[in-house]
Amino acid sequence: MGTFKQELFARPLAVINVGLHAFAESVAAQGGAVLDIEWRPPLVPHLRHTASGLDMDQANARAVRRINDGRPLLVGMGLAGETIPAFHKRLILHSGPPVTWERMCGPQRGAVMGALVYEGLAKDEDEAAQLASSGSVEFAPCHHFGAVGPMAGIISASMPVFVVRNETFGNLAFASQNEGLGRVLRYGAFGPEVYQRLRWMRETLYPTLCEAIVHLGSIGTPIDLRVMISQALHMGDECHNRNRAGTSLLLRALTPAILRTCPDQERAAQVFEFIERNDHFFLNLSMAAGKACLMPAEGIEGSTVLTVMARNGTDFGIRMAGRPERWFTAPAGIVNGLYLPGFSAEDANPDIGDSSITETAGYGGFAMASAPAIAKFVGGTPQDALETTEAMYEICCAEHQHYTIPALNFRGTPLGIDVRLVAETGILPRLNTGIAHRKPGVGMVGAGVLRAPAACFQEAFEVLRHDCSPRAE
Amino acid sequence: MGTFKQELFARPLAVINVGLHAFAESVAAQGGAVLDIEWRPPLVPHLRHTASGLDMDQANARAVRRINDGRPLLVGMGLAGETIPAFHKRLILHSGPPVTWERMCGPQRGAVMGALVYEGLAKDEDEAAQLASSGSVEFAPCHHFGAVGPMAGIISASMPVFVVRNETFGNLAFASQNEGLGRVLRYGAFGPEVYQRLRWMRETLYPTLCEAIVHLGSIGTPIDLRVMISQALHMGDECHNRNRAGTSLLLRALTPAILRTCPDQERAAQVFEFIERNDHFFLNLSMAAGKACLMPAEGIEGSTVLTVMARNGTDFGIRMAGRPERWFTAPAGIVNGLYLPGFSAEDANPDIGDSSITETAGYGGFAMASAPAIAKFVGGTPQDALETTEAMYEICCAEHQHYTIPALNFRGTPLGIDVRLVAETGILPRLNTGIAHRKPGVGMVGAGVLRAPAACFQEAFEVLRHDCSPRAE
Repeated sequence: MGTFKQELFARPLAVINVGLHAFAESVAAQGGAVLDIEWRPPLVPHLRHTASGLDMDQANARAVRRINDGRPLLVGMGLAGETIPAFHKRLILHSGPPVTWERMCGPQRGAVMGALVYEGLAKDEDEAAQLASSGSVEFAPCHHFGAVGPMAGIISASMPVFVVRNETFGNLAFASQNEGLGRVLRYGAFGPEVYQRLRWMRETLYPTLCEAIVHLGSIGTPIDLRVMISQALHMGDECHNRNRAGTSLLLRALTPAILRTCPDQERAAQVFEFIERNDHFFLNLSMAAGKACLMPAEGIEGSTVLTVMARNGTDFGIRMAGRPERWFTAPAGIVNGLYLPGFSAEDANPDIGDSSITETAGYGGFAMASAPAIAKFVGGTPQDALETTEAMYEICCAEHQHYTIPALNFRGTPLGIDVRLVAETGILPRLNTGIAHRKPGVGMVGAGVLRAPAACFQEAFEVLRHDCSPRAE
Repeated sequence: MGTFKQELFARPLAVINVGLHAFAESVAAQGGAVLDIEWRPPLVPHLRHTASGLDMDQANARAVRRINDGRPLLVGMGLAGETIPAFHKRLILHSGPPVTWERMCGPQRGAVMGALVYEGLAKDEDEAAQLASSGSVEFAPCHHFGAVGPMAGIISASMPVFVVRNETFGNLAFASQNEGLGRVLRYGAFGPEVYQRLRWMRETLYPTLCEAIVHLGSIGTPIDLRVMISQALHMGDECHNRNRAGTSLLLRALTPAILRTCPDQERAAQVFEFIERNDHFFLNLSMAAGKACLMPAEGIEGSTVLTVMARNGTDFGIRMAGRPERWFTAPAGIVNGLYLPGFSAEDANPDIGDSSITETAGYGGFAMASAPAIAKFVGGTPQDALETTEAMYEICCAEHQHYTIPALNFRGTPLGIDVRLVAETGILPRLNTGIAHRKPGVGMVGAGVLRAPAACFQEAFEVLRHDCSPRAE
C-alpha cells in the first residue's frame, strides 16, 4: 500500500473531482489536471405532490405541453404607450425583477436617464436622474406587462415595440427594437448619438417594419417565429447571443414586404442596412417569442417549471408556473466573459437583462450545442457549448418538440427548468449574456457565460417543500 | 481455446472489420453488428521525387499555399458568349471531363437539347437532338474555359454568368446563375416553363444583379466570397448541397446595392424573392470561388494535388496540379441518396456535375462536419457527416487557413487531395450531390452521398509512379 501511494504520487496526477468544487481547486493549484464534475448528492427530498394533492409531474407535463404548443407569430408593432395595456407616460419598464431607483445598477440607471431625456421628460441626464429619484416616475418590470427587454430592458411610452401573438392561446408579448452593439441605451449608454438613433428607429425603422409586418399578415403569411427559431438553431445560432442566422432569415422574410409597402426606395435600403449591420437584431424577437410561449404556462397549479428568469443587474429573479405572481430573487451573478479592447472584468456590471427568457423557453444557453461558433463571442470552447446543453437536460423535465439540435442527432432542446431538479442535482441553469459597463452612460464592454445564482432556487424549493408537507414543519 | 471459441460464437458478435469490405458484408448478412473500417495496407510505394528530382511534398505545399492565398471576389456578370474568352454561338459547355453526344448521359443530353432551343438554334427538342448529333455543335468541358456548372453544367452563349476574380492572382472563373430545384435545365429538364425561367433570368435577374455587383465594386466593397464561405461554414452550410446560410448572406450583401441601382421597386422585390425561395442560389458562386482559387495551382510541376474533380454523368474525371491538361477518368458512380416522392434509385442517373469543385477546394463533402443538418437533405446522420470530414483529413496534405469548422474546435477544413495519399490509404474522396433523372427532360429526383471511383486515382497514381522511376519500368 505504501508502495502504491509512493508510485501514485510520484506520477503527474489526473484527477476526476466529483462534487465539491474546492477539492478541484486545490488540485489545480498544485498543477494537477482536474476534470471537475458538477454534482452533489441529493440532500433534498424528491417532492411529488402539493399539500392539496396535486401531482407536480403531471402539472409540469401540462406546463411544458402548453409551452411546446405555442406558435408565436409576429403580427404587428406600435408605440409602447399606445400598444401595451395599462401603459402611461410616466411609466418606465425595466428588465428583471422589481427594483427601486435606489437599488438600481449603473447601466439600468443610465438607460432610465436616457429614456427620460428621449421622452422629453427631462432636458438632460442630470435632470433625468433627479426626476427618477423624485418618486414621480413609476418603475415596473417588463415581465409585469407581458414584455421583455434585453440588458437594461428599458421601454418607455414612445418607444416602438413588436407585437408577438401566440396563435395557439391568443396571448400577446412585446419587445423593443434592437439598437445594435456598442454605445446603445440598453447597455446603459446615453447622449446625442443614442437619442438620434432611437429617434430614427421610431420615425423611420418602425413605420417601415410595421407596414411590412401588417402587409404580411394581410396576405396570410405572417412571420412564424417558431419556424424561424427552429431554422436558426440549424444554422449555428442559439438565438440569444448568436442571432446571425435569425437576423438573416428575418431579412429574407421581411424584405419583399418592405419593398411592396415602402414608398421610398432609399428609405427601404437604409432600413435593410440597419438590420443587416446588426446580427443581434433578431434577439428581441427571439425573446418575445419565448415570452409569448411561456405565458400560457403561468398559473398551472402545482407546476414547478420556470416561466421567467430575469435580471436587473442588481437581482436575479425567477418565477414558477404554479406561482406566477411571486418572484424569488438572489444577487445577480458575475459574468465570466470576453472583454472588448480597453475593458476588463473590473468594468463589468453584474448579470442583467430579460434575455434569459430564451434559456427559460429552451434555447439560448440551453441550445449552445447548436452554436459552436458562439465561443468566439462569449468565450469557452465548442466542447463547452456541447457540455452546457448536455448538463441542462439534467434540470429540465422535457425536450422541445419544435427546436432540435442537429449535432445531437436532432434531439429536442432542453425545455422546462424544474426547480426540484435544480435542487436535487445542484446543477444551475447556464446563461450566456452581453456585459454592460457598471457605470451609467458607458455601454457594452463584453459578453460571456455564467450560472444562475443558487439562492433563488433554494428559496423557491423551500417554499415548495413547505407547501408539500405542512404538517411536518 | 476450444472453450473460448465456443463462448465467442455462442454470443452475438460485434465485429470490427478492418479492410476488405466483403468480410463485413458476410458478417452483416448473418445478422452480425459490423463496424466497417475503410482501410487497406499500403500496397503502393510512397513516392517522394519526380524523375527530374522535384520534391512532391514541396510542390504540394506550394500548390496548397496558392489555393489558401486565393481571394475570390464577385466582380461582375455578363452573357457567356460575350464574357468567357473564345466562346462562340455553337459552343455548348458541359460539366465533367470531355464527352461526345453519343456517350452523353440522359440529363446532360436533355440540358443540351433545352439549351439549343433556348438559344434559338433549334425549334424544338427533337430538332435539337438532331443538331447535337450532327457534329455542327461543339461540346467542351466548362473546366476548359475556367467555368463550372452544377449537374449537367450546360452553359450556352446567351446564358448570363457570374465573373469571380481571384484578387491575389488575377485569374477569372465563371458560373451560371442557379435556377432553383425541380424541373430545371441543369437537372436535364426542358420545356416551356424551363425556357420561360431562363429568359426571365437573362432579362430581369441578370441585369438587376449585374448592376448591383458593379455598384458594389464601384464603391470599393465587392462581395468577398471567401469571407462569405467562411461565415456560411459557421452557420451550418457546407457550401455544396446546403447553402441556406450562404444564400442568406448573399442577399444581405446584395440587397442595399440592388435597391440603389434598380429603377423598379417591384422588379427588385421579384429578384429578391427568386433568390430567397432557392436556398441553393449561392451554390454556383461557391463553385466559382472554388474554381478561382484552384486555378493558380494548375501547372505547379511535381504537385500531386487535385485541382479538378468533375463528372458528366458518364465519366468521373480528375486533374492534378502537376499535369493540369490531363484528365484521368473512370465511370461515374452511383449515388446513395434520399429520393423525392415518386422516384427511386432506378430513376437515378450516375453522379454528375462540376459542383465537386467544392470538395476539391476544401469544403462541400469535405466540410460535412460543419453542416450536421444536411443529413435531412442527403441522408445519413450528423455522426456520418463528422466522420466524413475526419476521413478526408487522411487524404489531404493541408488544412484550409480561412475555412474552419467550429465543431472541430475551429480546425481548418481538409484541403489539397493528394493522389498519393488516396493510393496509399485506399480512402476515396467523399462527395455529396443532387441526383438527376437518367432520362432527358425529367429533372431532379433526389440527393445523396458517394465516393469518387477508385480507377481514376489508380491510373493517376500509376502515371506518377512511372514518372518517378523510369529506369525501373
